[in-house]
Amino acid sequence: MHVGLKLQDQATSGQPGISFEYFPPKTAQGVQNLYDRMDRMHDLGPAFVDVTWGAGGSRSQLTCEMVRIAQTVFGLETVMHLTCTDMPRESVDEALEAAYNAGCTNILALRGDPPREKETWEAAEGGFRYAKDLVKYIRDKYGNHFDIGVGGYPEGADDNSDVDQLIDHLKEKVDAGSSFIVTQMFYDADNFLNWVQKCRAKGVNAPIIPGIMPISTYDSFIRRSKWTKIHIPPDWLEKLEPIKNDDAKVREIGTKLVSELCRKLLESGHIHHLHFYTMNLAQASRMILEELNLCPSTEAPLQKPLPWRKSLGLRRRSEDVRPIFWRNRHASYITRTADWDEYPNGRWTDARSPAFGELNAYGVRLKGTNEQNIKLFGRPKSIKELSDIFIRYLNGKLDRLPWSDSPITSEADSIKQDLIDLNQRGFITVNSQPAVNGVKSSHPIHGWGPRNGYVYQKAYLELFIPPYLVEELLARIEKNNDLTYYCVNKSGELRTRTDEGPNAVTWGIFASKEIIQPTIVESVSFMAWKDEAYQLGDDWAKCHPAESPSRKLIKQVVDEWYLVNIVNNDFHKTHDLFQLFDGLVIKDLDTEIPGIDPLVDGPTQPAPASKTAKS
Amino acid sequence: MHVGLKLQDQATSGQPGISFEYFPPKTAQGVQNLYDRMDRMHDLGPAFVDVTWGAGGSRSQLTCEMVRIAQTVFGLETVMHLTCTDMPRESVDEALEAAYNAGCTNILALRGDPPREKETWEAAEGGFRYAKDLVKYIRDKYGNHFDIGVGGYPEGADDNSDVDQLIDHLKEKVDAGSSFIVTQMFYDADNFLNWVQKCRAKGVNAPIIPGIMPISTYDSFIRRSKWTKIHIPPDWLEKLEPIKNDDAKVREIGTKLVSELCRKLLESGHIHHLHFYTMNLAQASRMILEELNLCPSTEAPLQKPLPWRKSLGLRRRSEDVRPIFWRNRHASYITRTADWDEYPNGRWTDARSPAFGELNAYGVRLKGTNEQNIKLFGRPKSIKELSDIFIRYLNGKLDRLPWSDSPITSEADSIKQDLIDLNQRGFITVNSQPAVNGVKSSHPIHGWGPRNGYVYQKAYLELFIPPYLVEELLARIEKNNDLTYYCVNKSGELRTRTDEGPNAVTWGIFASKEIIQPTIVESVSFMAWKDEAYQLGDDWAKCHPAESPSRKLIKQVVDEWYLVNIVNNDFHKTHDLFQLFDGLVIKDLDTEIPGIDPLVDGPTQPAPASKTAKS
Repeated sequence: MHVGLKLQDQATSGQPGISFEYFPPKTAQGVQNLYDRMDRMHDLGPAFVDVTWGAGGSRSQLTCEMVRIAQTVFGLETVMHLTCTDMPRESVDEALEAAYNAGCTNILALRGDPPREKETWEAAEGGFRYAKDLVKYIRDKYGNHFDIGVGGYPEGADDNSDVDQLIDHLKEKVDAGSSFIVTQMFYDADNFLNWVQKCRAKGVNAPIIPGIMPISTYDSFIRRSKWTKIHIPPDWLEKLEPIKNDDAKVREIGTKLVSELCRKLLESGHIHHLHFYTMNLAQASRMILEELNLCPSTEAPLQKPLPWRKSLGLRRRSEDVRPIFWRNRHASYITRTADWDEYPNGRWTDARSPAFGELNAYGVRLKGTNEQNIKLFGRPKSIKELSDIFIRYLNGKLDRLPWSDSPITSEADSIKQDLIDLNQRGFITVNSQPAVNGVKSSHPIHGWGPRNGYVYQKAYLELFIPPYLVEELLARIEKNNDLTYYCVNKSGELRTRTDEGPNAVTWGIFASKEIIQPTIVESVSFMAWKDEAYQLGDDWAKCHPAESPSRKLIKQVVDEWYLVNIVNNDFHKTHDLFQLFDGLVIKDLDTEIPGIDPLVDGPTQPAPASKTAKS
Repeated sequence: MHVGLKLQDQATSGQPGISFEYFPPKTAQGVQNLYDRMDRMHDLGPAFVDVTWGAGGSRSQLTCEMVRIAQTVFGLETVMHLTCTDMPRESVDEALEAAYNAGCTNILALRGDPPREKETWEAAEGGFRYAKDLVKYIRDKYGNHFDIGVGGYPEGADDNSDVDQLIDHLKEKVDAGSSFIVTQMFYDADNFLNWVQKCRAKGVNAPIIPGIMPISTYDSFIRRSKWTKIHIPPDWLEKLEPIKNDDAKVREIGTKLVSELCRKLLESGHIHHLHFYTMNLAQASRMILEELNLCPSTEAPLQKPLPWRKSLGLRRRSEDVRPIFWRNRHASYITRTADWDEYPNGRWTDARSPAFGELNAYGVRLKGTNEQNIKLFGRPKSIKELSDIFIRYLNGKLDRLPWSDSPITSEADSIKQDLIDLNQRGFITVNSQPAVNGVKSSHPIHGWGPRNGYVYQKAYLELFIPPYLVEELLARIEKNNDLTYYCVNKSGELRTRTDEGPNAVTWGIFASKEIIQPTIVESVSFMAWKDEAYQLGDDWAKCHPAESPSRKLIKQVVDEWYLVNIVNNDFHKTHDLFQLFDGLVIKDLDTEIPGIDPLVDGPTQPAPASKTAKS
């Protein structure tokens, strides 16, 4: 969706919008951390995020990659920055094509800083001189596909302090085809609002988004202000200078000052959106939003269009049906379906389900290094110790599992004790949801979709069980007419009650809409998920050294146990699913698997030569 | 669906199946009456119906037409008879093509009687000699598209009394590619079962369907038995001969005798299906089914796959979404969508809705002749008298209305009084349904779809209102966030709250299935329905003479009143819809429209020459 339209909505509704700006980190670990942070910051409800342009080679590729991930995996509407600096026309073309293919529909066109080695700004060979040239070029080449923003300089640019002249340039940029303005950082509210009036007086009518720079430390506050040559109101210095060595205090007072600034802007009636320069950090921006009362709360939770996070990738915007299996492996689902020509919309069709991508694609295999995973999950030596990992996850003491990328949510609250009981008895639960028999779509836990609707779900349970319990469990399931199941082992021997077609397990009823059924259980996608589920187990086993008890234990479970999913088709009932397991006993819960772990036991000793070998 | 498969299901389930045979009537009125009867007899739950072959010219065309109507409009799986008599190959080709295009997938291949003018049977020039030739030809030409049945003669055919030889012929016919056998009528159960054994012994293994001829009058019973040369058990004659002049008594005793015969067949374990020679009448067959306890009841109602009758026309079998507007105008909907290349399945899409067929197509305009309609609906002269017609319909005292082809059903029971109240106040209601918040799919009134599911509906009301109440009504609707509406007048000025897309107003949740949403409210189809609704009003007005009060009254309503539909999107509530009308008053309820009706008042007199005209 175009940022311009979102800004219009915010101006009309009076509900202020926010956005976050990120830049490409320098290390791979930094990128992973930033992704996790962007994912979490989604829950603060940004109307969009910005990714700055990393001029030159791999840095610009990283910008494109970040735009793609933000847009498709995290479902964040993303504005890609694009600068004229060091950018020949072909590089601009490549960047625009990458943005297009990522599903991105917003560009912030900037002149950019001069390259480090040069003192004054020069256009690249065959490149663009001014941002307005870039705006025109994008508009000519892509018509209305991209909404284009430009930069505004309320206190002058680094090589031009003539604010009035800069407003004339701004007008040229807007007239060239841009529809919103993001400003440089500033701390002087009165000067900014005055500048806004001047812009309007000169006929610059596009919405203006103030750039807000939170204060993290006194040093960075002063350094950035000097670098951008902006005016610091004297009372700010008076308040911050005396406490400059107390970072916590600086952040506390800084938050108050910046929040006061934001409040003033919003109350002016001219500003309906705040753009945060996050510096790739969450806390400072979050503190300001809390101070401003702009964080989503239980009373006013973020509206979820669907029970899962919508992707905004190219051609994916109308996607509204997914298998339940990847509910906790969002990025993997996006990756494995990235090559689909069209996405299921309204209903799941057989035609597209067989084409799940490879297990080796980026983001599909087990997250983290061996060391990280051993640190996180420990060295289980018995079924009991294995199950304990899952219980820790269910109790919120672990942020992920091999089969879940994200922490447990409050959705599981009503069945948490049942799940813990199952794991305590040695079953390994990997996915589940309770039945929901029509709650309002605004329900803080189960709600999704437009207001004034009702949402439903069928209870679902997916877990690993040992082979010797399969016959008894399936016999019990078949006795209850409301239950359907799929049961499979590593080599793919599938057993199921019926295979009538996709089973909708989440759906919603809304005014003036057909029924929306965003989550299904279905055989072809289950078989694709099964490969992934067993692969994740193998990956986990391989985090441990070859002869270690943990490797042997996990490998044994993965090689022998069955993955079973069960749906209670009567959506009035949840607990039938758990009662199925009454009295089923997993053997040797506490038995420790023998083995040698060089990380624990030291390097393997050669076995002593036996006497019989000699004789 | 192939009859052979249905017979297999019946043999497996142990639930006996039934079927009805019809022949092409001689008059147009006879055809219309038969269609009404076939429609009603659908509710007895036949697994299929047969239409006999009307050899020669228009009679054979009528067979094809009846097959098409039964299959597409009434959703009856139909077996088309085809005979060799007087049928050159091109005629067979035409008949098979017609059957194919009607969605028919079952043929009963017969040799047929010799043409009347000839004494012995001869093949037509270039035609077929034996039924087995016809079977082979159909199999060669259409592969497995058609399931093919053949005739069986337990007591000999008219030109061959050698039963054993006939079984040899039967085997040849089955071996040529037919998969079920329908027998001639008979009354001797023991002889029949004996014949079945003989067939089996000779390797005739296809399922055998006994032809059952009910007894209507003594004369027809004797005449048909003589004509087919079948054996009448002596005790039947003993019981019927003494009462032969008392038709009612004959039918009563006859029903008992034939039912006893049927029971014997079913109890033998060899027979799982009864085929009734209805002679185009319903009562005699129905009496036997009641005697056998095979009529659907409240305890075991007929299973409805969808809330509306499914069409079995070509390409229509997967159709599962329709606009609610034609709920009581089934045949018209089928006709107006007959040219669609594909039918909505899963959801309604804009792509196909604009292509509604013309209002002048067969079955779309007002049913019945002018005289019939005046007789049925009377000569209303005031709004009050007009509304009374609708109240009579709601009270079950009228079988149809200009906007409803069929009588009111028990579905309306819970809102009947509200509807009557509205009509008593002068509103004209044409369609409605109460809200249903999840009842079992086996519910005797609201249920549909597979067992063990739940069905839902949103309350719906469609009615005509006078122009001076439009603003007030729409203002009231807009005050309630749960309500959406479409309001239109004859010239097509549409007003609506939002036009977000199709609104599902009926849906069902079933095990191992996506959500089924068979009924929707939507703008494009509403505009197509609006044309039809106003046309029906015009048609009704024109049943009355030009200057008559009734013509003027109905025309005024049609020309000036608005057609409004309202959905209560909160499916927990029905009565909000009716409360909208509290205190709204229609003017001049009892005022009689002046006019002259030549049918009542005698022929119009020329106006006396006035004095002023002379001067």
